[in-house]
Amino acid sequence: MAEPSSSKPAVPLLKDELDIVIPTIRNLDFLEMWRPFFEPYHLIIVQDGDPNRTIKVPDGFDYELYNRNDINRILGPKASCISFKDSACRCFGYMVSKKKYIYTIDDDCFVAKDPSGKDINALEQHIKNLLCPSTPFFFNTLYDPYRAGADFVRGYPFSLREGAPTAVSHGLWLNIPDYDAPTQLVKPLERNTRYVDAVLTIPKGTLFPMCGMNLAFDRQLIGPAMYFGLMGDGQPIGRYDDMWAGWCVKVICDHLGLGVKTGLPYIWHSKASNPFVNLKKEYKGIFWQEEIIPFFQSATIPKECTSVQKCYIELSKQVKEKLGAVDPYFTKLADAMVTWIEAWDELNSTTSEEASSKSANGAAAATK
Amino acid sequence: MAEPSSSKPAVPLLKDELDIVIPTIRNLDFLEMWRPFFEPYHLIIVQDGDPNRTIKVPDGFDYELYNRNDINRILGPKASCISFKDSACRCFGYMVSKKKYIYTIDDDCFVAKDPSGKDINALEQHIKNLLCPSTPFFFNTLYDPYRAGADFVRGYPFSLREGAPTAVSHGLWLNIPDYDAPTQLVKPLERNTRYVDAVLTIPKGTLFPMCGMNLAFDRQLIGPAMYFGLMGDGQPIGRYDDMWAGWCVKVICDHLGLGVKTGLPYIWHSKASNPFVNLKKEYKGIFWQEEIIPFFQSATIPKECTSVQKCYIELSKQVKEKLGAVDPYFTKLADAMVTWIEAWDELNSTTSEEASSKSANGAAAATK
Repeated sequence: MAEPSSSKPAVPLLKDELDIVIPTIRNLDFLEMWRPFFEPYHLIIVQDGDPNRTIKVPDGFDYELYNRNDINRILGPKASCISFKDSACRCFGYMVSKKKYIYTIDDDCFVAKDPSGKDINALEQHIKNLLCPSTPFFFNTLYDPYRAGADFVRGYPFSLREGAPTAVSHGLWLNIPDYDAPTQLVKPLERNTRYVDAVLTIPKGTLFPMCGMNLAFDRQLIGPAMYFGLMGDGQPIGRYDDMWAGWCVKVICDHLGLGVKTGLPYIWHSKASNPFVNLKKEYKGIFWQEEIIPFFQSATIPKECTSVQKCYIELSKQVKEKLGAVDPYFTKLADAMVTWIEAWDELNSTTSEEASSKSANGAAAATK
Repeated sequence: MAEPSSSKPAVPLLKDELDIVIPTIRNLDFLEMWRPFFEPYHLIIVQDGDPNRTIKVPDGFDYELYNRNDINRILGPKASCISFKDSACRCFGYMVSKKKYIYTIDDDCFVAKDPSGKDINALEQHIKNLLCPSTPFFFNTLYDPYRAGADFVRGYPFSLREGAPTAVSHGLWLNIPDYDAPTQLVKPLERNTRYVDAVLTIPKGTLFPMCGMNLAFDRQLIGPAMYFGLMGDGQPIGRYDDMWAGWCVKVICDHLGLGVKTGLPYIWHSKASNPFVNLKKEYKGIFWQEEIIPFFQSATIPKECTSVQKCYIELSKQVKEKLGAVDPYFTKLADAMVTWIEAWDELNSTTSEEASSKSANGAAAATK
């Protein structure tokens, strides 16, 4: 089974069907390095923190930028579901996008090189991952069977070889690995230098730690579940935004028969965040996750839930009922999950035909 | 977390605790290439087919060899559970071994090279895989967290970081991939050239196609489940021996909380087998597996089954009850599963102290 050519295509893949979402508190100089790969695409920048600060975007990029004032204006009281002073605010960009696909990347992530020394076009690899099926129902020992030079091995059921639609592509990081604060503290010098040339499907029924640093997904298939929760300012926890989204997304993908891939592409993660600051943000999560993960491992969604929205509302009820006892935070989070879906539906209620005109009249504060 | 050094250790790892099992119909010239890695270990050679043929083993190797006459003499009527004229007979070697670990390899598998051009000591990598834990309960996106330069990523529950004992290490193949006959026919020229530098745990609840070409396991943890079934002479099916073992092993490992790893090491698989011959052997399996896999996916073993033997006998009952309707072959196979366990227990009933003396008085036809 052939994969798209790995050389740079004449017209960038999905040029008009994908938005790049970037949460930031600083000038976006990091985009210079990504210019050859990102310039053809539209960017949605979500400004984290002080809305009075001006974020500079290098010339030539097509973007819209939202700060906290914009979010409050667009969502009104429902803006309460969007985190403040935390990169979890990025999920506002998923909601306001009108495209089929999203790629999100942190502003401390740079272009990595493959073992041959060639710059890795991370976005192109994510698109390949999203456009070819996943294999969540049975493990293929030669990894992604749809890649050039690979296939399903002996003993793989033929009825499963069509695969499942891919909803999520989770990319990895060279240099600074995505460790928690305790591991950062214990291994301050550890760097990820191992380039593993594989993409694989995370099997049905298995949870994984989804990192938001280098992540792509199909908004139409799974968008409403990509809520990054309540983190940062006024909340008792941080650095669990992407984890929360990942647990919810995986349970819903499993229920709906959708696939989640992980592996390639790598980005170059330049700088470790401060482990002391991280520990303060994480410490409640470190013990809460011991209860949250068994909760998600045993969560089941009724058959009647046939849309992502219905699944997500159902999950929010179970969160309130079962995790509310762990900490009042989860009751608040469960309510925010409902608010998120209401806000999502409000901004995405139009048919796809209408969507582009609505987008043109849209609410961006600064569109270049 | 450190892994053992990858340089050749002064005393080979597990020298007196591991047997290498090789099924063959020909002279074992392929061992010459493995001499630097295999010579310190004991070999158990199971001669497939005509017992009157003499198998030549290169000088300097320490081995015992069993042909069909030996198997019949040692097992008596229970020899019916060991396949004839099929490499599935290798499982007799697992049964007759008295060691804690087994490595099994096909005689058309040679030493592969890593991307730096260095010969891969496959056995050493298998031993590393077996000696460090698995992570079946949650997926780690940086693959084996116990390898040098890797760890558990952010969001991995701390309570799961001890991992689970590793029962199986499933290695891969460069050059000729392990494809079924239809794929061989469609892609006669496909070669596996992708070296994926990863070891990973197959998550709990997920089945995989276990290939017997390059496989190691812990006999004490999972040995009695490593039965390669009834294949070859007088049977309606071939080339599903390792698959059958893999399905049973995985269900039992999941039940007992044991881990199964796949990935490194690679061997060089030299020659594709004849796809027309393979198709004849496989064709029943190709449709049977569409019913067998859902059977194993939904199989549950009662809590009372706390040993591999008890689990395996329970599985045999379920096979008879649920797969017997697919074809009378499965009733015969279910009976053979019981016979296998009886024979295993007969040969392995001694305590570990007695085992070595029993082994010394053992039943090998030709011991060098």
